[in-house]
Formats: sequence, C-alpha cells, structure tokens
Amino acid sequence: MRKVRVGVVGYGVIGQRLADGVALQEDMELVGVADIKPTLSIRALKERGMPYDLYLAPRADKSRFDELNIPVAGDFDDLLEKADIVLDSSPAGVGAKNKEFYVSKKVKAIFQGGESNSVADVFFHGYANYEKGLNKDYLKLTSCNTTGLIRVVDCLDRLYGIEKVAITIIRRVADPGDYHRGLTNALQMEKAPSHQAVDLMTIMPHVHATGILVHTPVTHGHIITVVATGKIKITKNMALEAFKQHDRIRVVRIDDGFLGNASFFRYARDLGNPRGDMYEIGLWEDSIVESGDDIMFAINIPQEAVTIPETIDGIRAAMNMQTDRLEAIALTNKYLGLGKWKSR
Amino acid sequence: MRKVRVGVVGYGVIGQRLADGVALQEDMELVGVADIKPTLSIRALKERGMPYDLYLAPRADKSRFDELNIPVAGDFDDLLEKADIVLDSSPAGVGAKNKEFYVSKKVKAIFQGGESNSVADVFFHGYANYEKGLNKDYLKLTSCNTTGLIRVVDCLDRLYGIEKVAITIIRRVADPGDYHRGLTNALQMEKAPSHQAVDLMTIMPHVHATGILVHTPVTHGHIITVVATGKIKITKNMALEAFKQHDRIRVVRIDDGFLGNASFFRYARDLGNPRGDMYEIGLWEDSIVESGDDIMFAINIPQEAVTIPETIDGIRAAMNMQTDRLEAIALTNKYLGLGKWKSR
Amino acid sequence: MRKVRVGVVGYGVIGQRLADGVALQEDMELVGVADIKPTLSIRALKERGMPYDLYLAPRADKSRFDELNIPVAGDFDDLLEKADIVLDSSPAGVGAKNKEFYVSKKVKAIFQGGESNSVADVFFHGYANYEKGLNKDYLKLTSCNTTGLIRVVDCLDRLYGIEKVAITIIRRVADPGDYHRGLTNALQMEKAPSHQAVDLMTIMPHVHATGILVHTPVTHGHIITVVATGKIKITKNMALEAFKQHDRIRVVRIDDGFLGNASFFRYARDLGNPRGDMYEIGLWEDSIVESGDDIMFAINIPQEAVTIPETIDGIRAAMNMQTDRLEAIALTNKYLGLGKWKSR
Amino acid sequence: MRKVRVGVVGYGVIGQRLADGVALQEDMELVGVADIKPTLSIRALKERGMPYDLYLAPRADKSRFDELNIPVAGDFDDLLEKADIVLDSSPAGVGAKNKEFYVSKKVKAIFQGGESNSVADVFFHGYANYEKGLNKDYLKLTSCNTTGLIRVVDCLDRLYGIEKVAITIIRRVADPGDYHRGLTNALQMEKAPSHQAVDLMTIMPHVHATGILVHTPVTHGHIITVVATGKIKITKNMALEAFKQHDRIRVVRIDDGFLGNASFFRYARDLGNPRGDMYEIGLWEDSIVESGDDIMFAINIPQEAVTIPETIDGIRAAMNMQTDRLEAIALTNKYLGLGKWKSR
Repeated sequence: MRKVRVGVVGYGVIGQRLADGVALQEDMELVGVADIKPTLSIRALKERGMPYDLYLAPRADKSRFDELNIPVAGDFDDLLEKADIVLDSSPAGVGAKNKEFYVSKKVKAIFQGGESNSVADVFFHGYANYEKGLNKDYLKLTSCNTTGLIRVVDCLDRLYGIEKVAITIIRRVADPGDYHRGLTNALQMEKAPSHQAVDLMTIMPHVHATGILVHTPVTHGHIITVVATGKIKITKNMALEAFKQHDRIRVVRIDDGFLGNASFFRYARDLGNPRGDMYEIGLWEDSIVESGDDIMFAINIPQEAVTIPETIDGIRAAMNMQTDRLEAIALTNKYLGLGKWKSR
Repeated sequence: MRKVRVGVVGYGVIGQRLADGVALQEDMELVGVADIKPTLSIRALKERGMPYDLYLAPRADKSRFDELNIPVAGDFDDLLEKADIVLDSSPAGVGAKNKEFYVSKKVKAIFQGGESNSVADVFFHGYANYEKGLNKDYLKLTSCNTTGLIRVVDCLDRLYGIEKVAITIIRRVADPGDYHRGLTNALQMEKAPSHQAVDLMTIMPHVHATGILVHTPVTHGHIITVVATGKIKITKNMALEAFKQHDRIRVVRIDDGFLGNASFFRYARDLGNPRGDMYEIGLWEDSIVESGDDIMFAINIPQEAVTIPETIDGIRAAMNMQTDRLEAIALTNKYLGLGKWKSR
Repeated sequence: MRKVRVGVVGYGVIGQRLADGVALQEDMELVGVADIKPTLSIRALKERGMPYDLYLAPRADKSRFDELNIPVAGDFDDLLEKADIVLDSSPAGVGAKNKEFYVSKKVKAIFQGGESNSVADVFFHGYANYEKGLNKDYLKLTSCNTTGLIRVVDCLDRLYGIEKVAITIIRRVADPGDYHRGLTNALQMEKAPSHQAVDLMTIMPHVHATGILVHTPVTHGHIITVVATGKIKITKNMALEAFKQHDRIRVVRIDDGFLGNASFFRYARDLGNPRGDMYEIGLWEDSIVESGDDIMFAINIPQEAVTIPETIDGIRAAMNMQTDRLEAIALTNKYLGLGKWKSR
Repeated sequence: MRKVRVGVVGYGVIGQRLADGVALQEDMELVGVADIKPTLSIRALKERGMPYDLYLAPRADKSRFDELNIPVAGDFDDLLEKADIVLDSSPAGVGAKNKEFYVSKKVKAIFQGGESNSVADVFFHGYANYEKGLNKDYLKLTSCNTTGLIRVVDCLDRLYGIEKVAITIIRRVADPGDYHRGLTNALQMEKAPSHQAVDLMTIMPHVHATGILVHTPVTHGHIITVVATGKIKITKNMALEAFKQHDRIRVVRIDDGFLGNASFFRYARDLGNPRGDMYEIGLWEDSIVESGDDIMFAINIPQEAVTIPETIDGIRAAMNMQTDRLEAIALTNKYLGLGKWKSR
C-alpha cells in the first residue's frame, strides 16, 4: 500500500514536532517541510544535515536561504504537488491564508488550534470525535490545553458518562526560548469562561463546561484542575483505573518525584526523548479527590508536543486510512511509542 | 473606658502589619513590639524613629541591638506586664514555645496560621465564627488563603446556604523580599486535599470543602478559584450582589485594569496605602460563571495583609470588647478604613 | 518669594512619583496633573479624594472621566496657564508631541529619558551637569539606569578623576503591575554598547564608557556592576568613603540583610515610604573589589523613583531657583528627606 | 589497545551527562553508573531499558530498587572492581566520603566542582592545565561557570597574553526540574570576589581575576560578562578571530536569533541533541566592545553540560591516554562532535 504523503507547513515549535512525529509513522511519508525564513529552527535543520527537505512557504524570499547556504528543495507548489495532505502549523491566521493554495491544489490540510474554526470542515480530536474527521478535506485541531483536557474528560465520559466540568487552567505563558510574550512576577486573568471550556463543548456537545484561565510566568507545561460531575458518582478509584488504561495519560505521584510541571520536562529529557518532549499528559494520582458526588483532579499539559498524536490521528481520519477510531489511535500510539512504558 | 492594651510578638511581615493595624484602632493601645534580633524590619523601625517601643523576645541577645544603638524598652516580661493580649506572629512553631510565657503571665494571645491548632482554644475567623472566640484566652487565626476564602464562602453561605466548595489555590510562593523559599520556572503541586479546604471545614463544619494547591513563582497575591454548590442555585447576579455588600471584598473588573494579582498591589501603592498593602481580597466580576447549578469565580488574596482585620476581630472577641459579631466587625472595618472606598 | 508652579503631564509610574516629590518641595507648588484616560492610577487618585487637581492631556476624552465621576479641573491649556514649568512623563514619543503646546504657551518643560535627546536643549543630570540646565527652557532627564550610574561615577570623578568605566547592567524587565512587557525564564541580551554607557558619555564627555545590558525577569530594581579606571588608583577604602558621603547613595551590606534588589524594596516598605519607594541607589559595601588599578562594585537602581530627585534638580536649574549646584541639590535632598537617615 | 573503563558515581544532572559523554568516546568503556536511591533519573533509566548497568552507591538500600523492579548489577565494590577510573558526581561533600573507597580499591577518580579542592591532587581544566593532570590519581574539575570562563580567558591568553579580568556572573539559580533552590522575582548578591574568579587564579596563576556574582531567577544558562586586560591591546577583531577558532566556543549573533540564554537551549533541542544539551559555551559577537585598551564581551554557560568535555579530558590526563594536550582535547571533541558544526 502506498504510504500517505504528508507535508508540514511552518517549521516552528509545533511544525518541527509534527514532522518528527509523522516521520515515525510507518504508513506515512514526510515529503518535506516549508517555512518563510531561515529561523533558528531552520538553521538547526541545516546543522543537522537537512534530514527533511525544505520548501519555500508562500511569500518566502529564497535569497535569504541562499545567503546561508541552506538547500531549498522547491517552492510551495512543489511541496503541494508531492503531498496528499499538509499539516499547517503556521502562525495563527496565516493558515487561513494558505488554505487557498490547498484548495487550488486539491490538497487536504489539518490546521492547528490558532486558526479560527471556520477554516475547517471539522473541529477535531482523535479520541473524542474521530469519526467526524473521516474523509474530510479540512480539519482543525483543538489547542494544546483543550486537547489534553478532552483526553481525560472523554476517558471518563466513555466509561461513566460526564454531565459537566468546571476547570481552572493554570497556563504557562511562554515556551522555552520565547522572549516576546513573557510575564514577570504576575498572575494574569482572562475573562471567564475560558475558550478551552467553550471548545470542549463544541467537540463534546453533550457535556457542559466552563472555566477560568490564569496565566503564570513559567514555560514547562500547563496545569489544569478539573471538577467533573458524572452521570453516576465517580469515585477516586474509578477515575484512577480509567486514567491508568489510557495510552496518552501518564499517571504519576508526587511521592515518586513528580513534584510539578517541570518534573515531566526533566523526566522526558532523562528518557532521552527528542527535544525533551512528552506526548502524554500527566495526571497526579495524589491530586484526585472527591467533592461530594463530583470528582476533582489535576493534569499536566506538555504544550509543545501534546497535539502531535491527535494531529496524526487526524491524518488517518482525513485520508480514510482507518475507519475505526480505536484502530487508528492504536496505530498512532504504536508508532509514537505511547503506552509502551506501562510494561516497563 | 480603658483601651485594650495589645503587644505584638515577632516583628516580621505579619507582625509589622498587625502593629500598624492595632495602632489605628481607637479603642486599643499598642504597647509595643518584640523581636529576637535586629532584622531589616527592626532597622527600619529605628530609621523611622522608633514609633513603637521595642521589647526583647525570648532568647533575644540585647547586645546585638545595643551594637546598632537600637533602643530597647524592656525584656519580654516587661512587655507582658503591660499587655492585656499579645498577637504572636513569630515564625511557625515559636508561638507554641512562647505560649508558656503567656500562660505564666496570664496574658491572652492570638496565634497566626503557622502554629498548630492545638496551641489555641479556638481556630478563629472574624466573620465566620466570631462568637466562638468570645472571652477565650487563646485564639489561632486562619492562614492567609483560608482567611480570604472563608470571607467569600461565609458571605454566600449566610445569604443562600452553601453545601460544598471545590477550590484551586494558585499560590504565590514567596513574599517580596524573600530569597530563601522561591521557585523558578516551575509550578509545584501539593497533595490534595489542600489544608485550606480542611481548615475551612474546621471553621464551617456544615460545608464540605476540598481542593488542590499549586505553587507558582510570583510574590503578589494568591489567586483562588472556587466552585461552590449552594443550597439553592446561586446565579451570577446573586453572587455579585452578595460580594458587593461585603466590606472586606473588593469587586473589580479586568476591563478596568485589574488584569491580575499584581494589579491589586500596584493599585494599593497608588492609593498611598502603607507598604502598598490591601486588607480586602479582590474578586473579579468577569470571572464569575455558572456551572450548571454551581457558581464559579476567582478571588485574589493579598497574603501579607489579609489576616490583619480578622486578627483584630479576634482581639475584640477574646477581650469581650463587643459581644455582637457585626458590631465588632464594623468597628474593625471603620478604624482600618474598610468599605469607605465604596462611597467614592 | 512666589513658589515655582509645576505641572505634571502623564500620571503613570513616573508621573505619580514626580507629583509626590514636587508636593514635598516647600519652594514649589504642584498646580496639577494631566492624563489622557482614567487609568488605574487615576482611579486611585479619585479614591484618595483627589489630593491633586486633574487636567485633561491632549487628545483626552472628557466623557470617559465623567462616566466615572472623576472631577476634571480643566483642559490642557488650563494647566499650562497655571504652570511655570511642566514635568512631562508621558509614554516615550508623546512628550515630543506635547512640546508644541509648551512652546506655544511659553511654558518650560522637563522630559523623561524615553524621549529622544533632540526634544530638549540639554540632556541633564542634577549632580553631573547642573550648570548646563540653568535658565534653559527644555531639559531631558537621563533614564533610570543612567541617572543612578552617573551618581556613582560623578561621585568618584569629582574626588579622584575617572578615565573610563565598563558596566554590566542586569536590568529588571518590568515594573510591579506590568503585564505587557515581561520575560519568563530567560536572560535577554541587547547589542553592546548599551545606550546607558553612551548616554553617560554625553553627560560626562571626559569619561569613556561602554557596557553590556542583560534583561532579567524581575521587577524590583536594576543591578549594575561598574569597573572603573581612575586617574589615580582608587582603593576600596577610597571608594567607600566617597560613597558614604553622598546623600543619594545608600551604602549597605549583605550581612545586614540587604541580600539583593528586593531587599531595598522591602526595606522601603518597612520604612513606610509611600509606594515602598526609595530615591537612593543602593551600593553594596561587600561588592567593592580592586581589579589591579581598577575598582569594581555593584549598585542597585530603584527604577520607579530614582529619577525624581534629579528631575526636581532640573526644575531648580531651568527656573534659575539656585545658581549653585550644591545649594540646589541640598534643597532637593532636604525636602525629600535624603541623607537624614545617616544620622539615625 | 584495551579501552579505559570508566564508572560514574551519582546519576543526577551531571552524572547522566558524564555517562552519555563517556559512552561516546571510542577509546573508553562505560562500565556502569551508581546511585543511592531510585530517583526520577533512575526510573527514566529503567524506562529506557537500562542502557547502562546500575550499581549501588555507598549506603544505598537495595530493597528500594527491588520494589520497583529496577535491575541492580552489583554493589559499589563490584563497580570499583571493574573501573579504572570513576567520575564522582555525587552531591557536594559526598565525593570526599566516597574517596576512601577509591583509595582502598586503588581506583582513580575525578571529582566535580562542588567538592573542596583538598579532595584532589590537581584542580583541573582540560584546556588550561592539562599537563598537570597527567598520571594523577585524583583530579577535581572546575565548576560550570569557571570551566566556561577559563575557556575564553585561556583562549585569549594563549594568543595574546592576559593580565587581568573583571567578571560579572549573571547566574541561573536552578536547573530545569529543580524545586528546592529557586528564587522568585529577586536578584541575589554574593559577596565579592566570586569564587569563580578565585578559582580561575588557582588554575591560571599568572592572571589576576576578580568579580561579582548575581543570582537570577532563570534555569537555562549563566551569562558572564568579562572585562579583560591583555598584555597587548586586544581589538574586537582579534578577540573574535580567536573565539571562532575554538571548538568549545560557539560564536553567535543576536541578529541571527540568539536573543539570550534560552536561545541556546532551544537551539540544542532543535538540533536534536540529547536532553537539549550543548557542550559549547556561547559567545555573542555583537556583545564584544573595546573599553580603552581592555576588551569586554558576554558568554553563555550551559550549566548542565559544559563540564562534560573537560571531565573527559581529565580521564585522558589521569589515565595518561594522551600526553599531548592538543591531541587529547581533539579526541574528546571528535567523539563529542564538537567543532563539526563549523563546516556546516
């Protein structure tokens, strides 16, 4: 069977990780990546010896690459010729502009969370609404917080039924290496309800969700607390057992040394994971408490890598590679090595 | 009527503010403050010209004060001779040791939240259980987060009845000027349930409370999100009206410039408040959302000053100055200038 | 003798402090402050009961103040009618636009460091070039770092002669209450030489200066290390004695509890200084070391308040209130309470 | 020729990187690592499938490893039997206690910078005093800041001669994943001169060094500014040319996107370097300025990995693998891939 050919547009924080993730899928072929200028990430690609072919994104100035002797494999049309589907991880708003190229070249595309929903046919999450993405031309992924949040809510919902959730998002304000959007010695509020709660309801319309988001001056992972009301009372044990079965949720304990968000980052570095990344969200076993009939717990969202698996699920859906949700997810997980650690 | 004579033991972050707050009460007299060594705060007291008399705390070495020409008004016994009641804001654990002096000298005392509950006859909050403190010898105040949290829960509870609350504490990890207990680029978890939820239930045993606490690397104010289940459904409007009536809750809006915890600090400085302090907790009007029949909102806790009013309420209770809760609270508020801003 | 009438334009971080500082000068009268919209600082002014009259800055929309019942004393022309001189602390670039009003109304003005040098007749520092400001119409103050830096360089230069300085500025990136220009978990470089070194040479052309600036994610005070080459060898003792004589330099020791930049902020709060401000720069006695014939030391710059005294010196110069540098400085210091602490 | 057999004691931040670095040396064999308890790093080792054999460090409790099914290859004596030399990266002070085992087993050892100098025969730096380490039994490495600093000072000194340096160390206060030694919104001073300047003089006694160290609340790399006085005037160009030749110095520019310390971390992640590590120090071309006859510039020290190459140089010296300094250094660099990037 011919491998599905995938292009990545925008080789930034997300784009690099999408490229790496696609390259691991044995039933996909990464045909190349595109960017608009020789950023540090492109310079790193060159220093690595160009493991991926580089194409020019729309409006790129080839001379800037030439000056630095960075090999360019072709322009945007060349990439689109080769690709069955592109993953567009351009800065927010640029994806919508790029879409006209995809439409004209009849290439499918998956957009990241920064684009507006109207750019796509379906607002997508691999676990929660895989079937909606089947055969569609344009998908939009949930944002990093929403992606991780839906993993746990969907996990409980499929087993026990969820009526409503009230979330508190303790958001990291910048990625490592960001200088332009920091915050210093302040917690910053956003008006409630947070968009993540609203987005969750778009994906899971049978669940009510609301929440408050607070920005914090850290770079390694968001923490979300969830107060969930089940259709039946969900005990601590019921929740824990559900989470432990999930291949994209890593259940940890403070006592084992997972003291906070930075522990996941350190652990992923110690694992030798490329870029110190982790695809799984973390879930603290010792954060789970019962509040009357509600269940409350805290999760960790590794913002740089968390959307990679669900985006790859999206390729499987849009390209109709697997019609079965669980089969698709299992393949993504297998190629990304997710769940393997449980047997160790 | 003779003024109640109050001593303050431990002239640190809290002790200084207790002294200032007591000095504003027209029916109280600050007889002096005690400390164990010439800290920066004591040096500042001297540079200000010794507005408060300084006494030696137990185990203090007078020669260290003499070397710096800091006038000492007497030793610990001298202070206890003059005081009807002392506010002990020594470091956690020291208060318990100091208690033997209070017992032997038959002086009443109010301990801060760092001491264990067993040090006191009553675990006290001015609004929630004033009557329990009446005529008691030893009170212990709730900690800063619990003090502020109880303000809002008690406020809703008295009007509408509260069944349970699930809280997320986004805790500032250090005070301005702290170097020894910081946190850098990390969010740190504590095992759930947080002690603040447990403490709330000690003060308000008819309410169920649980919660998760996350430490964040900031210094200006904790933020707590509260998901509260009322005995009746509490709408956004019902909550807002309740909060606006409360003299120790300042209702603000993000749109007005209160973007986060640091805004309260900046505003208090701009108000000319001594030390840039604020006694009120903040409550963001635009954080209030309904979650089914529950109500959710976020508050700001100015950790350095928030316990001052409730501690002064404690003096009123322990010394039997007012037997009526509302009368006592109103006097504390009047002398501290609380609530006046509403008419501006 | 008629008091000099001073207006303040731009009631932000600097403007508020200029107003407070002018109000303390017994030979000056603060006629009012102007701003363009009802910021948090203006709301605080109202909550304080309008101790200063408020005027509309150019392009202000009076209705926004009216909505909040904030009393407005007049428009910009009204302020300029009453003032002999204005202190313009508008955001960078706005001062240059405002200048046309000052020219047309024949009002003198002092601009802050954010404006370009061309806005003024003289680039001014009270200690270093007071005489150049005499009788001038338009002065521009040095920025906060440059103001503090020149204090120490001028101090050594007048006593011993300085040939060159190489500085490292460890810059705080935001003020308390700032949300929009933070930095999270990063040290950010600026291209060398830093503008502060260049500015020093403009004020003190006989000294060579260069330096490197690094932004750090903190809010309480810049720290600058200075490597200074004297015309004669300056020993640690010679430097220390010079600094101790200076009324705008506070010599402190790590051993006394001044552990870093935040200690000055905490100490100023403990002193009861309004807003927790300090006009003096700090100088760590235990940072002074000799490097061959050079002398090296570290200073602390309280960025919010440090330029206030030198700006007031500027009023004295521009209005010809005192022709003698030392006499002018001494008056500013006296009214601001500077140097008094040495006798305590 | 038999490979030199190396053990690593203490599998923490430094120990893990030493193990990885040694494993890359084709003329060395990593015989195993030792630790005292199943830390997160040891758990990660297990999750990776135990690429390195694990031994028990002195006072380790084997049952704690057994509980987690972590395979243990032997006790401390077993490791020492197999090793020709151990790299001791235990917490400061523990190395000195471990030394008795090394002495009794006649195994050579290299200690990290946290131990006192007296633990070793030689205080060592691969570039600056390689010859002193030849055939010695016990070496101690310079600390991370000193290691990086000596690279640049030695580089200039060998070409042009250096008389003195005055340094400002802007120190990161914690590593990613640290919770216990952070700092929040403060710059903290250390008494001058900093130990790094003193240490430099121990290694390079013909150079005078002094300096000031300031702790900052960041985790990715120290920044040091250096003011160096050459025996001849060193121009910007002379310095730049020297630095560009050095295989452990990476010359970068702000204009290329290296905006601060976090850029190196991000770049190393983008390069796919394990753990996002970088062995090279960074040097900003656009920070180099002349100060009269002195030269000033800023370097970046990747604190987690910078000492690895010089420690491996130490193995070469202590084991007499190469008697020639440049030959030894070149082999370390070759196996670590240092300098290769220059040809890309």
